[in-house]
Amino acid sequence: MSEISLFQEARASYQPKLPKSLQGGIKAVEGNPTESVGDREEIKALFPNTYGMPVVTFEASGCCGCNAKSEPFNVGVILSGGQAPGGHNVISGIFDGIKSLNPENKLYGFLMGPGGLVDHKYMEITSEIMAAYRNTGGFDIIGSGRTKLEETEQFEKGIVILRELGIKALVIIGGDDSNTNACVLAEYYAAKNYGVQVIGCPKTIDGDLKNAQIETSFGFDTATKTYSELIGNIERDCNSARKYWHFIKLMGRSASHIALECALQTRPNVCLVSEEIEAKEKSLDEIVQYIADIVAARAERGDNFGTVLIPEGLIEFVPAIKKLIAELNDVLATDEAKSVAREDQIEYVRKHLSAANAATFSSLPADVASQLALDRDPHGNVQVSLIETEKLLSDMVGARLSEMKKEGKFCGKFSAQHHFFGYEGRCAAPSNFDADYCYSLGYNASRLILTGKTGYMSVIRNTTAPASEWIAGGVPITMMMNLEKRAGKMKPVIRKALVELEGKPFRFFAEHREDWALNTRYVYPGAIQYWGPSQVCDRTTCTLALEQGR
Amino acid sequence: MSEISLFQEARASYQPKLPKSLQGGIKAVEGNPTESVGDREEIKALFPNTYGMPVVTFEASGCCGCNAKSEPFNVGVILSGGQAPGGHNVISGIFDGIKSLNPENKLYGFLMGPGGLVDHKYMEITSEIMAAYRNTGGFDIIGSGRTKLEETEQFEKGIVILRELGIKALVIIGGDDSNTNACVLAEYYAAKNYGVQVIGCPKTIDGDLKNAQIETSFGFDTATKTYSELIGNIERDCNSARKYWHFIKLMGRSASHIALECALQTRPNVCLVSEEIEAKEKSLDEIVQYIADIVAARAERGDNFGTVLIPEGLIEFVPAIKKLIAELNDVLATDEAKSVAREDQIEYVRKHLSAANAATFSSLPADVASQLALDRDPHGNVQVSLIETEKLLSDMVGARLSEMKKEGKFCGKFSAQHHFFGYEGRCAAPSNFDADYCYSLGYNASRLILTGKTGYMSVIRNTTAPASEWIAGGVPITMMMNLEKRAGKMKPVIRKALVELEGKPFRFFAEHREDWALNTRYVYPGAIQYWGPSQVCDRTTCTLALEQGR
Repeated sequence: MSEISLFQEARASYQPKLPKSLQGGIKAVEGNPTESVGDREEIKALFPNTYGMPVVTFEASGCCGCNAKSEPFNVGVILSGGQAPGGHNVISGIFDGIKSLNPENKLYGFLMGPGGLVDHKYMEITSEIMAAYRNTGGFDIIGSGRTKLEETEQFEKGIVILRELGIKALVIIGGDDSNTNACVLAEYYAAKNYGVQVIGCPKTIDGDLKNAQIETSFGFDTATKTYSELIGNIERDCNSARKYWHFIKLMGRSASHIALECALQTRPNVCLVSEEIEAKEKSLDEIVQYIADIVAARAERGDNFGTVLIPEGLIEFVPAIKKLIAELNDVLATDEAKSVAREDQIEYVRKHLSAANAATFSSLPADVASQLALDRDPHGNVQVSLIETEKLLSDMVGARLSEMKKEGKFCGKFSAQHHFFGYEGRCAAPSNFDADYCYSLGYNASRLILTGKTGYMSVIRNTTAPASEWIAGGVPITMMMNLEKRAGKMKPVIRKALVELEGKPFRFFAEHREDWALNTRYVYPGAIQYWGPSQVCDRTTCTLALEQGR
Repeated sequence: MSEISLFQEARASYQPKLPKSLQGGIKAVEGNPTESVGDREEIKALFPNTYGMPVVTFEASGCCGCNAKSEPFNVGVILSGGQAPGGHNVISGIFDGIKSLNPENKLYGFLMGPGGLVDHKYMEITSEIMAAYRNTGGFDIIGSGRTKLEETEQFEKGIVILRELGIKALVIIGGDDSNTNACVLAEYYAAKNYGVQVIGCPKTIDGDLKNAQIETSFGFDTATKTYSELIGNIERDCNSARKYWHFIKLMGRSASHIALECALQTRPNVCLVSEEIEAKEKSLDEIVQYIADIVAARAERGDNFGTVLIPEGLIEFVPAIKKLIAELNDVLATDEAKSVAREDQIEYVRKHLSAANAATFSSLPADVASQLALDRDPHGNVQVSLIETEKLLSDMVGARLSEMKKEGKFCGKFSAQHHFFGYEGRCAAPSNFDADYCYSLGYNASRLILTGKTGYMSVIRNTTAPASEWIAGGVPITMMMNLEKRAGKMKPVIRKALVELEGKPFRFFAEHREDWALNTRYVYPGAIQYWGPSQVCDRTTCTLALEQGR
């Protein structure tokens, strides 16, 4: 038996598709000066050297070899934050992109995230190494990490190794925070005239790094397809056994894009959307009642089964819980609170909360209440991510249904199973879409480097069209920024994209959910296919298809 | 957006492969009279009409149409027990098989399992209905159920509807128990001269329905490939983030075939095999120490991450726990025990256990101990399946590592994530192997019916060869039987196949596990592929490949 899987062996030879405009020589077409999405004066003051630059679009120059005459240069690459399918293809895109310009060009990878730049941990990515990672999932080629590049000291340590390795440009592959930091670094090096360009690439399975310029972040396509495969399988099981309600929590730090996309692909009976719950100021009890009513309505039809999708970030979007957690963090922060014996904590908390928050606290199941009161992170904060929302909700729904049974409002059975999908999809082998999209993002980054750009994000648009028609170019990162409060201070950040309740994906869902709730409309997407009919292998997400009206 | 997925739409047109011998007219070649695997006299006495029949093999008759002249007849089909990928293809195989004999033949499905036969709930499976379910996962075409066909009264109720519908033969698709019951029913109808044949089909993702005659049960291939896809994805994440130990529990009532197969496909750092733990009489502490030592050894190399596979049935194979559970069931069964207040139960249990079992009980984490003492099923038995073994083990490993740290024997970090895969794979769309295998099993069943067989299981052998070379035929179910104690009484049952410690799959694993434990040898199998290179799409399980020496 082989050391790599037969799948990986066969998939290695896939040649990712590139936009036509990147297939030969390019010319850069520049637009008008740009402005940030908010707080223009402040952002401009913070980024004097990288503010206001034009959007750039690459067009085919008609000359296939003209870019290949550039002087040799080296590039560094960093993977930042959580894994997303396609990271290796961004790197292979950069690799092939710079080699096409001059075979002498070298690509260095900094190890285990941004920390590798600061600590001077790196490796050269040779063509042999690259070959083993083409079209594979994971970030294991150089590893990733969560060190934040924010301090001048880090930037100065970075420039030492960048100069030592003759690196002309650094590509940072990351989410909104990492791209914000890429821009800060670009500004710093530009201000200091260090001669090192910095380019960002939009990564995150969460799908919350998108805006007027970025259609989708990479990894979202593959991760949601993997989760939807599993949800579809569970729905089919559910519809065959007809005896369980499956409560399925889906990864996604705060936005509900993943849950919504999976709902569009699989049509479950219930999908909660955090952004709607916040907007409508729903209480936990109202959410529970909403689910319990659907369970009861289905039971009346003899259908004692169903599926419920829950976004991981839900609990913090419930206004009452959000307020409770905020006050808990204050109440638990005092020295007095810290001196209270563990067994007396819950009572102590109950006494010190405001009446409204105490009521919310009392409405929670005992284990969740004690988790909130007892488990704190190193900063003394409540650890919301430890709450098993899928169990919390099913317990509360079960309790509500028992009451409804006594009132004669529920005549069925309720038995629940729980699932949490996250790690199952972050490192899946990239779908054709992500393989092509990531390779194009990386290849495109090499062209942004060639044309001397810094503080730009590599951007590929028109992504629901065939890859050959995709539009490649760069967008100044400052253009996506505004000021937001972080840890008490106003900071320049890329605005995070939450689910828009007026957007087409949510509206499509909202129009159909009542039908999906009562009737059984499950759709079974199956596993990601890499070979076979194009409509199966090359389909984009429902979110993208709806947003672009395809 | 379509009501069925693009994948399902494209996959519907897949034409499952049949053995050459079934592609035209057949002739039945019969072997010598057979004997049961054990307790021959007793089994013979219990099955006077269906004991000793020969194994039958179908060979091509050279005449393509000769079977098509049979008188019209109707067939009934039942899905019994847990879902397994390919059940719909068994049914489409039967459907196409009987239609090829006479287009007037009808196929009836009994609804929601064996109970549908008893309660006269059924539907005709028309070609339109059949078309919507070809090559799909799930048992939702007619549903499944766990009613056991054991009582004369059920058999008599069954014959009423079978006669009403003109059903000449009944195909029961199920695991070892359901096939045992199929044989009892066949014997009963034969003894009564009711003129209805009964044929079994070997289903179960657990892989424990196999023996000298049956190479593999259907569904095992697809389910283990789905779990291995997910385990591979987690391994890749694990190897990228380098900070978590993932404890992954895998479905499988008692045998460890699923965990072992997944280990062969993905090469995790640890895979527990219940059968080995029982044979070597390992205690829970020894298992915990085994894992903790591997964590510590990897930590010394700087690798604070890993993957652990755990078979669902593990806990009942640990001899000390098995004894504890047996005594607990006795201790908790008394009226005195039932009258003890809930909060005093644990103390009561502790006092009434033997010294050895009390020691085992005390060694368990508090929540597991209280689960064992408090949560009982309707029969008053301890609910072993509720124990979250993956958390139990990681908690105990964590505690052990804390002690080892104090002793200077562990220098790393230990942080765990938990997963349980079961429902994610039972209803996946059948792999090419399962699609072909199941279709052949069903088609073959129609030939067993044609040739007048009853009390036979549909059997397809030589399954690691291309499908055209598969060998089709039937094996008398009595041949696989012996007597075993069930609920205090000796009963005829099909012997369940546990993992053989002398078998090639386990030996391959045992030879490599030390290397896989310390070094990182992860293999990433990827999602099941239905189109594309044959070596990817048509590969069988590692278990089958090793067993058959391919």
